[in-house]
Amino acid sequence: MGEAFEKLRGLCATIYDLVGANEVLSWDEQTYMPPGGGEGRARQHATLERLSHELFVGDQLGEALEAAEAEAAGLDPDSDEAGILRRLRRDFTKKRRVPAEWVEEFAQAQSLAFQVWRQAKLDSDFKAFQPALERILALRRSYAQLHAPQGSLYDALLDDYEPGMKASDLRAVFGELRPQQVQLVRSISESKAAVDESILLRPFDIKKQWDFGLEVIEHLGYDFRRGRQDEAPHPFTITLHLDDVRITNWSTAEAFGSILFASMHEAGHAMYEQGISPSLRGFPTLSGAALDPSHSVSLGIHESQSRMMENLVGRSRAFWKGYFPRLQAIFPSELEGVDLEAFYRSINRVKPTLIRVEADEATYNLHIMLRFEIELGLVEGSLAVADLPEIWREKTRDYLGLTPPDDRSGVLQDIHWSDGYIGYFPTYTLGNLISAQLWEKIRQDLPDLDRQIEQAQFSDLLAWLREKVHSHGAKYEPMELLHRITGDGLSAKPYLQYLTEKYSEIYELG
Amino acid sequence: MGEAFEKLRGLCATIYDLVGANEVLSWDEQTYMPPGGGEGRARQHATLERLSHELFVGDQLGEALEAAEAEAAGLDPDSDEAGILRRLRRDFTKKRRVPAEWVEEFAQAQSLAFQVWRQAKLDSDFKAFQPALERILALRRSYAQLHAPQGSLYDALLDDYEPGMKASDLRAVFGELRPQQVQLVRSISESKAAVDESILLRPFDIKKQWDFGLEVIEHLGYDFRRGRQDEAPHPFTITLHLDDVRITNWSTAEAFGSILFASMHEAGHAMYEQGISPSLRGFPTLSGAALDPSHSVSLGIHESQSRMMENLVGRSRAFWKGYFPRLQAIFPSELEGVDLEAFYRSINRVKPTLIRVEADEATYNLHIMLRFEIELGLVEGSLAVADLPEIWREKTRDYLGLTPPDDRSGVLQDIHWSDGYIGYFPTYTLGNLISAQLWEKIRQDLPDLDRQIEQAQFSDLLAWLREKVHSHGAKYEPMELLHRITGDGLSAKPYLQYLTEKYSEIYELG
Repeated sequence: MGEAFEKLRGLCATIYDLVGANEVLSWDEQTYMPPGGGEGRARQHATLERLSHELFVGDQLGEALEAAEAEAAGLDPDSDEAGILRRLRRDFTKKRRVPAEWVEEFAQAQSLAFQVWRQAKLDSDFKAFQPALERILALRRSYAQLHAPQGSLYDALLDDYEPGMKASDLRAVFGELRPQQVQLVRSISESKAAVDESILLRPFDIKKQWDFGLEVIEHLGYDFRRGRQDEAPHPFTITLHLDDVRITNWSTAEAFGSILFASMHEAGHAMYEQGISPSLRGFPTLSGAALDPSHSVSLGIHESQSRMMENLVGRSRAFWKGYFPRLQAIFPSELEGVDLEAFYRSINRVKPTLIRVEADEATYNLHIMLRFEIELGLVEGSLAVADLPEIWREKTRDYLGLTPPDDRSGVLQDIHWSDGYIGYFPTYTLGNLISAQLWEKIRQDLPDLDRQIEQAQFSDLLAWLREKVHSHGAKYEPMELLHRITGDGLSAKPYLQYLTEKYSEIYELG
Repeated sequence: MGEAFEKLRGLCATIYDLVGANEVLSWDEQTYMPPGGGEGRARQHATLERLSHELFVGDQLGEALEAAEAEAAGLDPDSDEAGILRRLRRDFTKKRRVPAEWVEEFAQAQSLAFQVWRQAKLDSDFKAFQPALERILALRRSYAQLHAPQGSLYDALLDDYEPGMKASDLRAVFGELRPQQVQLVRSISESKAAVDESILLRPFDIKKQWDFGLEVIEHLGYDFRRGRQDEAPHPFTITLHLDDVRITNWSTAEAFGSILFASMHEAGHAMYEQGISPSLRGFPTLSGAALDPSHSVSLGIHESQSRMMENLVGRSRAFWKGYFPRLQAIFPSELEGVDLEAFYRSINRVKPTLIRVEADEATYNLHIMLRFEIELGLVEGSLAVADLPEIWREKTRDYLGLTPPDDRSGVLQDIHWSDGYIGYFPTYTLGNLISAQLWEKIRQDLPDLDRQIEQAQFSDLLAWLREKVHSHGAKYEPMELLHRITGDGLSAKPYLQYLTEKYSEIYELG
């Protein structure tokens, strides 16, 4: 590439460093920052965000982008540079459309809504949260109108998290998923098979669980030279830059599993980031409405990587054929009298719950669908915020056969809406579906995969993911990337088939 | 204050946040950053430094400063605003004088010299370091010429660390100090008194030492709500902003003392930062040649606070009257058969060493003086870099009665010159002298001090330091601050008297 592209790269590098520095501040805030540091930290965040925003939407970047695009005319559309320019153009256009007043108003509404939500959840009092959520919704709708003055407002929001995805795509795929998944859960609940999770509920030493998780994710291929795991109130992955991708985990649960599976989940995210091609680095991307140093393609593809490691690998029989003896060696008394089969069944027990983050593989998507349907209704105007608790109860009954006793375990359980994340939930289910679509292809390309997993050999799997998914970063839109890999668009079939096979066997369904 | 000052405050706040964010990055780099993160981190640092430098020396800030100064005409010179404007004017003028090319050249020379020094020290090979040091010296001289085209070059360098201080002031005070301190060390070495440090060399559990240090500095008044202590390769204090002032410590030494005294030393620095008046915050100051979120007055005054806590408090008999029983309870077997008196003597043992950072109170200044004399000769041109190893050996023999067997334990031992810190060493001795000058005044104002210290009561001491030293930040030049507190200028007498009394008693000198 020529001079114009290099000039653009230089401008982007400054923004990239500011955005990455801001992530260092966020990481610190959620891990080690002393309690009194919050106010000064908020000011530092605001300053870094303002400066990076100003540089990103500035005329200087606009002109440099235009010049680089002119220079790139005729370039191979599969080249890294063409991919970078496509994504930058999209993000620049989106971010330029949003006036500074909206950003400021939204930041205030967000901060207020979060505080109100936290208290309302404690009090299980949706009415207290209602005005704040109405404000958030109104602002998100006006944001969507900026981007889609004629089109679907929900599409405009969804596009922030899953570029190019439409509500109609989701409706189609969820329509296929819903009846079959509801039916599966029903069959499981009627099964007489013995699946006992009580063995996991014994106290397991937390430090040993933590270390076992570290051991596993190192085997998976998480690069500790370019990352680390620290304690935080909840698990997350954060990219400070693409050679410093950290994960966090909680360390409170004595029951076996949540520490390990959180490590594997976050390692799935983090290995994606660590695998983005060096040639794509140094260009910030828009993730949600915020600039991000990641240059990953979408939340759905991201989630496919974490779900794959957590579930398709971590909850598979092959994986535990390899690791169960090791686990027994670490916890000899806790696992006394437990065999591989009982253990495998226990970590795959299906039990509908009211709480999304506690949901198992068989029910997780049902939690997402009810949220999607509600969001869609809110954004399209067919649902009123005031009606949410009742609608939530109804849908929970329909999909999960449970009735929330209060708003705390119903409509108030998730942080997302209070934070302004409307259009975000579907990406969790996209992650599930895409993980299974990729897995189907991986099994074709790596016929030996099960045996490798049994031997804790993950290098072929990681190499495949690196080549097909990670390295491409945000070069293609997510569905184009999926199509290039699988030859197919979004589909619910592989995931449904995976679920059905797995649980038919465990629960001895006809 | 009016509109112009508020405008200036706004501009400074942005720089302040950038500088503070950069410190978060530094803290992380030295505590938790994974090894592979270094390259990306260096880019983030460079970007934040460039942006804050550009804003600081920009015309916009210059104009706002001028307007605020006009607005402030007639303002009480003791007001916070007048103090802020004086310091900003000084720092702005200094930083504006330095061309961007010099900054870039120096950064490269610094980075190279550091790497070369590290290897040369390992190899104990001064010749390998010589060209890099010559380059650093030449650049520091040309920097000094920018600031003092007619005056003393060394003064110009010293002024970066100790505003207003002159080489002639140091010469005078060191001239008084040197013969008496050399004589004291000689008398001690001839003493027959039994001072045994072997009891400290038993292995003491590191975690218990660490926790004891935390306990002590919490008593001293270090505010853990606005700070924390983490492990790092060497102890330091770092200000992320003035409500988040962290310290680090090593955790390698099993011999008793280095962990505790490092905690107390760094807590002395950190309590200073935590005590700077809120009304002075948000204005970056120039520390050395770098912008800093601290707004503290000088390195000498800073060091007076750390030395006071480490030595005047931490190595006093009164302190151990209170803490020795506690220490015995923590280490019952390690301290079996050791009484307070033997312990007090052991932590105050005098033994000349070749290595500055291992030096005791009686010999520390001698290490500094030899460095000062050499620096001065280098900057003034009366010494050549090539001659340093020999001069170092000579002076070490004269002052300490020892001869370095190699350059590693001689001229190559310290990092400072490789980092470009020429004119910095004297601030260590200034810290010692000023700590004793302040201590003399504190004892007058708090006649009950010894008894309070025996009871681990430090609130009066901290309140005194807050009122007289900490709160003023960089409002006055260091010597003006000292004069306001003690009614006196810099003086070696109180420190000499302190040393002489303390060691005459311990070593039973005539």
